[in-house]
Amino acid sequence: MNQPGSEPIPPLWEPKPLTVREESTAEVVSVYEVAPRDGLQAETVVLDTDLKTEFCERLWASGVSNLEVTSFVPPAWIPQLADAEDLAARLEIPDRNDSAVALVPNIRGLERAYAAGFRAVAAVASCTESFARANLNTNAPGTLARVCDIASAANSLGISVRGYLSMAFGDPWEGHVDPARVADLTATLYEAGCQQIALGDTIGTATPGHVRAVLRAATSAGVPTSALALHLHDTYGLALANVYSAMEEGITTFDASAGGLGRCPYAPGAAGNLATEDLVWLLDGLGVETGINLDDLVATSLWFSAQSGRPAPSRVVSAYAARLAV
Amino acid sequence: MNQPGSEPIPPLWEPKPLTVREESTAEVVSVYEVAPRDGLQAETVVLDTDLKTEFCERLWASGVSNLEVTSFVPPAWIPQLADAEDLAARLEIPDRNDSAVALVPNIRGLERAYAAGFRAVAAVASCTESFARANLNTNAPGTLARVCDIASAANSLGISVRGYLSMAFGDPWEGHVDPARVADLTATLYEAGCQQIALGDTIGTATPGHVRAVLRAATSAGVPTSALALHLHDTYGLALANVYSAMEEGITTFDASAGGLGRCPYAPGAAGNLATEDLVWLLDGLGVETGINLDDLVATSLWFSAQSGRPAPSRVVSAYAARLAV
Repeated sequence: MNQPGSEPIPPLWEPKPLTVREESTAEVVSVYEVAPRDGLQAETVVLDTDLKTEFCERLWASGVSNLEVTSFVPPAWIPQLADAEDLAARLEIPDRNDSAVALVPNIRGLERAYAAGFRAVAAVASCTESFARANLNTNAPGTLARVCDIASAANSLGISVRGYLSMAFGDPWEGHVDPARVADLTATLYEAGCQQIALGDTIGTATPGHVRAVLRAATSAGVPTSALALHLHDTYGLALANVYSAMEEGITTFDASAGGLGRCPYAPGAAGNLATEDLVWLLDGLGVETGINLDDLVATSLWFSAQSGRPAPSRVVSAYAARLAV
Repeated sequence: MNQPGSEPIPPLWEPKPLTVREESTAEVVSVYEVAPRDGLQAETVVLDTDLKTEFCERLWASGVSNLEVTSFVPPAWIPQLADAEDLAARLEIPDRNDSAVALVPNIRGLERAYAAGFRAVAAVASCTESFARANLNTNAPGTLARVCDIASAANSLGISVRGYLSMAFGDPWEGHVDPARVADLTATLYEAGCQQIALGDTIGTATPGHVRAVLRAATSAGVPTSALALHLHDTYGLALANVYSAMEEGITTFDASAGGLGRCPYAPGAAGNLATEDLVWLLDGLGVETGINLDDLVATSLWFSAQSGRPAPSRVVSAYAARLAV
């Protein structure tokens, strides 16, 4: 019999989740990748268009099938995204129009996005007055009206529209947001022609029961589950528990940002967007198909982090990086 | 009508989860706090007994009711915990014996813990050969036999025993661990007199379906749900999603470490223990009673982090710290 410790220790395993299917969750989930737009918009540095181009190309090559590429805001508003037309041209967006989305702030932005070849756009409305005034330069009903106008014009052009509802759970000034109010706004956007409405936990305070309450209120207001997406932040570590409870409610589209790129503007230093790698780890473990190759995605985030100098707060990316450093 | 932006922005809200009860989860959960033992054992620095004493006192004052205070290992093994008797004396452990637990590696450790006033102990067995040989200086069956011996002796003394099963999901060398094997080992410890068995996701690879599979295998092997606890790591960001799925399986005891103290020894730089604050945020949101005051606990972790120079990787603590710094 061998003495304890007498055998050499084998090399470390490369960890992967064990796949155990659950009947309560869908077999396929759409991951909506927001790093190039939402992640970079939150950064103060302006990155080269070359670097953004390669970042998007690598994300698609990793299996990302829904990529929010940029935003057609007036360049003076967000200098980080002022190269929207140039980026779209380099990415040959007209050949990508099943998998590329542009954010647009108004009809002028929609026209620019359409001219650049985008056939899917997204637009932001606010559930709260505070956020509308602080970030969207109007009041809350004004943000709704703007998205409804964009949806109408976009549908006339034959392109799809995603409506974001920011602050659908908590607001940095107003606190908890009434789920019934969120449900009404969701129904308004759906009836106005948004094919998808992404409910944003912009400050990350939601917990699973709260998520279920908002989703149930929205479906009770007449919005089908298939038209709902969740845009969750990991500020308090709850994003994946919330994803899991939403999957049990039938939700099949989740936003995420490669590497966890993007901060929380109301708590600098805290975590922001849910990291795509962490989401894919969960979904791989549940045997849910996403089309994304986790190793390729982690490699993309590590490469982008090295190139851009931006840290990747994703737990999965951090663990991979730590293992590679051993 | 007010012009947009014409009103002053009010002060920032102090975020808290909105409480929404779910019928599928218990009304009360026990949080088993491991920071003073598991957290500090993972650190390379040796901290003053004064500091540890105040840390434990503050944790109890924050509402922690199950605290693993220290380990009665031979001082040469783990210099960080060599002050076990001194710490126990300062904490007046005989008056705390409902809420203080000591880890013991063997019968000698049990005797020392008993003499120091502890009336609850914990002991570690390994599901895998690799971990047993690398960390516990014997083989896997040897670790089981040792815990069974401790359980028998402890029960004779009239004190309770918690058995840890390390590497109950993945092993850093062997990879995925067979749930049926974990279930057998859990039943062995339960039959040997362990009142509670804590299943350890020591490298943090578990996902919700995997957690359910292990829990169901253990209950099928005859161990009641009430005797099971989960010791989860957040290495890949899955700890809270796993907690939530385990709550749906009826589990009511979860381990956590204040501030997220403690690293992953197999991936330095990666996250280790689930942070108690993140767990309490989830439970507060679900309306589950823990007895812990989140603000007091965060203050304790921020204080300890400042005193010890150790970062607190908890998402909640990071967000509080970021907000306080604005």
